[in-house]
Amino acid sequence: MIRKVLVANRGEIAVRIIRACRELGIKTVAVYSEADKEALHTQLADEAVCIGPAKPKDSYLNMGNIISAAYVTGAQAIHPGFGFLSENSTFARMCEECNIKFIGPDPSTIDLMGDKSTAREVMTNAGVPVVPGTEGTVSSFEEVKKNAEIIGFPLMIKASSGGGGKGIRIVKEFNELEKAFETARSEAKANFGDDRVYMERFIENPRHIEFQIIADEHGNVVHLGERDCSLQRRNQKVLEEAPSMVLDDDLRTRMGDTAVRAAKAVNYKNAGTIEFLLDKYGKFYFMEMNTRIQVEHPVTELVTGIDLVKEQLTIASGERLSFTQDEVKISGHAIECRINAENPGNNFAPSPGKIDFLFLPGGNGVRIDSAVYGGYVIPPYYDSMIAKLIVHGKNRDEAITKMKRALWEFTIEGINNNIDFQLEILNHSKYLEGEFDTGFIAREILKL
Amino acid sequence: MIRKVLVANRGEIAVRIIRACRELGIKTVAVYSEADKEALHTQLADEAVCIGPAKPKDSYLNMGNIISAAYVTGAQAIHPGFGFLSENSTFARMCEECNIKFIGPDPSTIDLMGDKSTAREVMTNAGVPVVPGTEGTVSSFEEVKKNAEIIGFPLMIKASSGGGGKGIRIVKEFNELEKAFETARSEAKANFGDDRVYMERFIENPRHIEFQIIADEHGNVVHLGERDCSLQRRNQKVLEEAPSMVLDDDLRTRMGDTAVRAAKAVNYKNAGTIEFLLDKYGKFYFMEMNTRIQVEHPVTELVTGIDLVKEQLTIASGERLSFTQDEVKISGHAIECRINAENPGNNFAPSPGKIDFLFLPGGNGVRIDSAVYGGYVIPPYYDSMIAKLIVHGKNRDEAITKMKRALWEFTIEGINNNIDFQLEILNHSKYLEGEFDTGFIAREILKL
Repeated sequence: MIRKVLVANRGEIAVRIIRACRELGIKTVAVYSEADKEALHTQLADEAVCIGPAKPKDSYLNMGNIISAAYVTGAQAIHPGFGFLSENSTFARMCEECNIKFIGPDPSTIDLMGDKSTAREVMTNAGVPVVPGTEGTVSSFEEVKKNAEIIGFPLMIKASSGGGGKGIRIVKEFNELEKAFETARSEAKANFGDDRVYMERFIENPRHIEFQIIADEHGNVVHLGERDCSLQRRNQKVLEEAPSMVLDDDLRTRMGDTAVRAAKAVNYKNAGTIEFLLDKYGKFYFMEMNTRIQVEHPVTELVTGIDLVKEQLTIASGERLSFTQDEVKISGHAIECRINAENPGNNFAPSPGKIDFLFLPGGNGVRIDSAVYGGYVIPPYYDSMIAKLIVHGKNRDEAITKMKRALWEFTIEGINNNIDFQLEILNHSKYLEGEFDTGFIAREILKL
Repeated sequence: MIRKVLVANRGEIAVRIIRACRELGIKTVAVYSEADKEALHTQLADEAVCIGPAKPKDSYLNMGNIISAAYVTGAQAIHPGFGFLSENSTFARMCEECNIKFIGPDPSTIDLMGDKSTAREVMTNAGVPVVPGTEGTVSSFEEVKKNAEIIGFPLMIKASSGGGGKGIRIVKEFNELEKAFETARSEAKANFGDDRVYMERFIENPRHIEFQIIADEHGNVVHLGERDCSLQRRNQKVLEEAPSMVLDDDLRTRMGDTAVRAAKAVNYKNAGTIEFLLDKYGKFYFMEMNTRIQVEHPVTELVTGIDLVKEQLTIASGERLSFTQDEVKISGHAIECRINAENPGNNFAPSPGKIDFLFLPGGNGVRIDSAVYGGYVIPPYYDSMIAKLIVHGKNRDEAITKMKRALWEFTIEGINNNIDFQLEILNHSKYLEGEFDTGFIAREILKL
């Protein structure tokens, strides 16, 4: 059993992991940058080690320093959270070589799923539907033209090493094709150091539906139902919910079975997410797998009663899953709103600075996963998400009214935030009716 | 349907009720004393009316001013919360006469249950076991002696109008009897303006087990399982949990059926609680009925998924219960710790004053029902309870570790509080084993 964990992250997810460890009797080591001396995760952990200057590359991405911190403190395992090093197979391998348990899947699985064109191939072979597109990458315009005829327009040219919505060009007609191909290649090179690209059909107005996977190290794989994460701004999720209004029992079963098959195909271990696009005709396509815990995991926790981060820790200790697929029951409805320090009135510019006054909503069915407190100074170096507000109701209507009530109470003074923006979404008649897709926020809220 | 509710209370329960109303789309009117201008309930309600000076008798007990506030604002109903006017039948009758819905049972039911000797009689007639004792009150020492022979020692002499642990004398042997009788009578007269007393066997080291009742206005009565409230200091509950470790399914069913029978015997409506004493032989006795929502109601909400305050509001609007007894399922384990502004190191003296810094714990399975915020000044005129920390785990062990984690995070600077005292209870080996009774805190923690 793991007795001490180093948390290689910051913000609310670091706090989330520290809390889970504490409840399991596991000691925690926080790592922090020079800008995060007063951060909540630094204060809540049993020990805290400074790993470098504020900039991520000098601290939270500094593999050597993090591994050293684990050595010095005697941590037996590292939880990477999300972002930063969580999907970095080099780091996972370094942990392995240093005899430190990386809490996540094997490095080879991270590699496999991190390379989007390889992932497509593996999924196709496992019978998991993927968006029609090229087998592997395309390297000449001749190849691009030939494939475009098969795939049809609109299509996408995507960076093989991309992810999180980055490195994507949408091509609506033939005469845009050559320029898009060149641009995509040079952007991929610039952003990911890898100019390989592949092509896929562009699914218009899809829902983003993802399935939570949990797998132990003994071959047991279970899914915990879906999350509807269609509400996005520039490919960043804004509001997530479970279950999705657009899945009936039959579709849920088919997508869930497919997600489990996908995870099994890569010998998946620990928590992960299979992301699907669901088109307006009810057809679904594998998009990508996130080989880590996700920001929006709490909505799944609230509807299943299963603590995903605790499961991650016990699985990493070698324990078997304590439940079967049949024992997973979805109860009620959960919604998460990401609370960001940003200014929606100024193109969502980050709004770091001092929180002069903070009032967090509470009461029945309200959960707060946060990394801030009254008087805290949000540093300008990191992601603008400062808290997650998650609610659980007996049905979607109750969850929505509860979220509106909680957002209404939520008070953050001193910095800009997106609370009113979230309320705008929740008050929109089409959101209430469940009529939304990944283009909803741009089209209906921002009128872009 | 009720569209506007006046909340005739303050503190966390007023906030709790305002939140439930808001989620149901019901407008709220707060009433506040001159000392509560900055209180959270005053700020969160849609409207707020000052009803008088700080002292309770001038404001929160000022029936005329409260009724006037309801008239002026057009509130159709009054929710009394707990304490203050919540079990005052005169107030309930005033509401009725003014055509304002009192959210609770009929005034006659309040009267019946408020008079402890009448309640005993009604319960006995309904086949509900009561602690062996006198039928009705005793008024002469001759009568007291005769009854003492039948009941046996130790016994209690209790004020007929008492409640909440007040107006009780314990008599261990015959030669204490006469003095105790005289003292009890004069104390009852002084405290409750009514010198009637009755006698009961004193149950040594009992558990305090209470059943939550919910009843609509169409004759449907359901219980929502039990709460174990044995952890008390001077008859004030400190930490409550659900379910109780000492009830097996058979005993739970028998006690639950008895509680429903008790409620039906008095034509009960709305939320109420049947309190039982459970002796070490597994025999249970009716103690009293609280004809209102209770402080500890959230533990029942967390294990049943039923929102009791919302149920109170919909029942008061004339709706039927939306579930049957068979549909009530207990899931996991919940614990509540009352967080008080008091100094355990100085005989629990109240500790009003300014909260200089506040950090409320959060995360999975943690609920906060609070009435305070950073910078808030706790006035000296009212109850010292400032927040309730409630946790839900898949079993008792998880709930305990979660509560310990949350209490550990909980930070209140500027005033004294009982957080460490709560941790002492939770760390006690006998508490962990479930071996406690109503004398536990005095005996094991305070070593009195």
